[in-house]
Amino acid sequence: MAVYTEVSFEELERLLARYDIGEPLSFKGIAEGIENSNFYLQTDRGAFFLTLYEKRVAAQDLPFFLGLMEHLAQRGVRCPLPVKTRDGHSLVMLNRRNAAIVTFLTGIALRRPDASHCAAAAAALAGLHKAGEGFALKRANTLGPQGWRPLAQAIHGADTIEGGMTALINGSLEELVSGWPSGLPSGVIHADFFPDNVLFVGNEVGVIDFYFACNDAYVYDLAIMLNSWCFELDGSYNITKGQSVINAYRAARPLSEAEIAALPVLMRGSALRFLLTRTYDWLNPDPGALVRPKDPREYSKKLRFHNKVKHAREYGL
Amino acid sequence: MAVYTEVSFEELERLLARYDIGEPLSFKGIAEGIENSNFYLQTDRGAFFLTLYEKRVAAQDLPFFLGLMEHLAQRGVRCPLPVKTRDGHSLVMLNRRNAAIVTFLTGIALRRPDASHCAAAAAALAGLHKAGEGFALKRANTLGPQGWRPLAQAIHGADTIEGGMTALINGSLEELVSGWPSGLPSGVIHADFFPDNVLFVGNEVGVIDFYFACNDAYVYDLAIMLNSWCFELDGSYNITKGQSVINAYRAARPLSEAEIAALPVLMRGSALRFLLTRTYDWLNPDPGALVRPKDPREYSKKLRFHNKVKHAREYGL
Repeated sequence: MAVYTEVSFEELERLLARYDIGEPLSFKGIAEGIENSNFYLQTDRGAFFLTLYEKRVAAQDLPFFLGLMEHLAQRGVRCPLPVKTRDGHSLVMLNRRNAAIVTFLTGIALRRPDASHCAAAAAALAGLHKAGEGFALKRANTLGPQGWRPLAQAIHGADTIEGGMTALINGSLEELVSGWPSGLPSGVIHADFFPDNVLFVGNEVGVIDFYFACNDAYVYDLAIMLNSWCFELDGSYNITKGQSVINAYRAARPLSEAEIAALPVLMRGSALRFLLTRTYDWLNPDPGALVRPKDPREYSKKLRFHNKVKHAREYGL
Repeated sequence: MAVYTEVSFEELERLLARYDIGEPLSFKGIAEGIENSNFYLQTDRGAFFLTLYEKRVAAQDLPFFLGLMEHLAQRGVRCPLPVKTRDGHSLVMLNRRNAAIVTFLTGIALRRPDASHCAAAAAALAGLHKAGEGFALKRANTLGPQGWRPLAQAIHGADTIEGGMTALINGSLEELVSGWPSGLPSGVIHADFFPDNVLFVGNEVGVIDFYFACNDAYVYDLAIMLNSWCFELDGSYNITKGQSVINAYRAARPLSEAEIAALPVLMRGSALRFLLTRTYDWLNPDPGALVRPKDPREYSKKLRFHNKVKHAREYGL
């Protein structure tokens, strides 16, 4: 059974009548994402992406996400641009869901990016941070330290996944929440800058899926990126990729001493954040999801690795 | 959980190295079909469709399906054209599945086709029947009368879906199998010519999904089409649409007296065929399927309607 919200051709035609983007030539549901229902839409004027927002995306956050994509696209970030209806709305209702049409971004996500891909993506991340300056809306990071304890309390049976996982979570949680750095340079971060969300055409980089974007420390985004781009499948940290990421990022947006000093704890925190959500999703699978839940053990391994790190140099600084 | 077979960019690149169809620009899994894993592939040379054949499609049938699409496309039928590797194969292996790349067919399936769409699709069906002449391979209809009894025996609990369904199935089954007409004009039929499998761009008609195609009576295909295109959502038969279908079909491929006489029993038989598979799938849902099983009661209602029909005139002849 799919949670997938279906959209008929007739519903699509009624929707498109509100836009000035041409006649539909192709329309296909995309098996991507666990948050939303997504459709590839080709018209005689171009290629688009229709998203119906399902329950996991809070309706009050949509103006932030859509406005951010528009803000970034206007400042040269390669990302989907929300398309407006004839009367100026980028958010519409379709089949009782909030929905939006954005431009379709070509490019392919890499399962195993090499060091040069890491560098190109890190430069794009720094560019995104700089382009986000001046964006008027704010959104707190609901999956930041304040969100971890309720998430941890909702997890029952983590040790059935891996022995010692409950102790790992609880031990890290208390220490990280109490010692979490403050006052770091902050602004709009992507907060889910995984290889899945970065599309390459050659070395040109596009960014998608802004549905975790929020205001937080820039270097936390860098930590999320290092965690998701620089470990090998066997769990080892690839310091060459780490150097590529950090050097390319710093070349576009210099890191302060405070950011460098905070990196190890932010690596641990971002590993814990994904460990928590993956563990919860693993233990509470959505029978309607179109994709398999991701293995939380990838992140318990990373967290254990970070627990032994003393200095940002060990990440390739 | 999805049965969906994933394909990484690296696997895609290795696959594309065997073809001469350009560099990948976009690659997305499509939430379509319960039989296979499907991907939309855009390259700098055009748009394609990659299919990985999952367990429901028998490997020995693939040369028939792919050869048929090639045969039909070469004879002017708008349908996907299998693309060959540099060394001339249209069937390849990918992630331990049989797989094929075909050209991407633009067009959109209509949820509620009107009478003029019915006529255009029926003309395309007749065109498909004529274009199929001379295709060298053969495939028996595994879901014809000989396949119904084993399917019916595998169904347990049909009455939990709808009171009287078991009696309806068993009663129709014996009568239809023993009285099934033979000697009708036969050839390649699509065997799943539902609105989902017919793509419109304006009034131009394209046909997809040949994975039930087989050799059987042409008028049986017409009966499948009438069953799936001419009933309204409330279960009533729309004789205007029936007339459109039959007239457009006959204008392109005349019906013999024997075919006209056989139509009522073929309408019952094709309704029973879809009632059987839908009932089985409803009672044995595949937890990994990307789409909801279709409601078998749509077809029990149609079968009950046909059981009262005496002459092809009642369908719009």
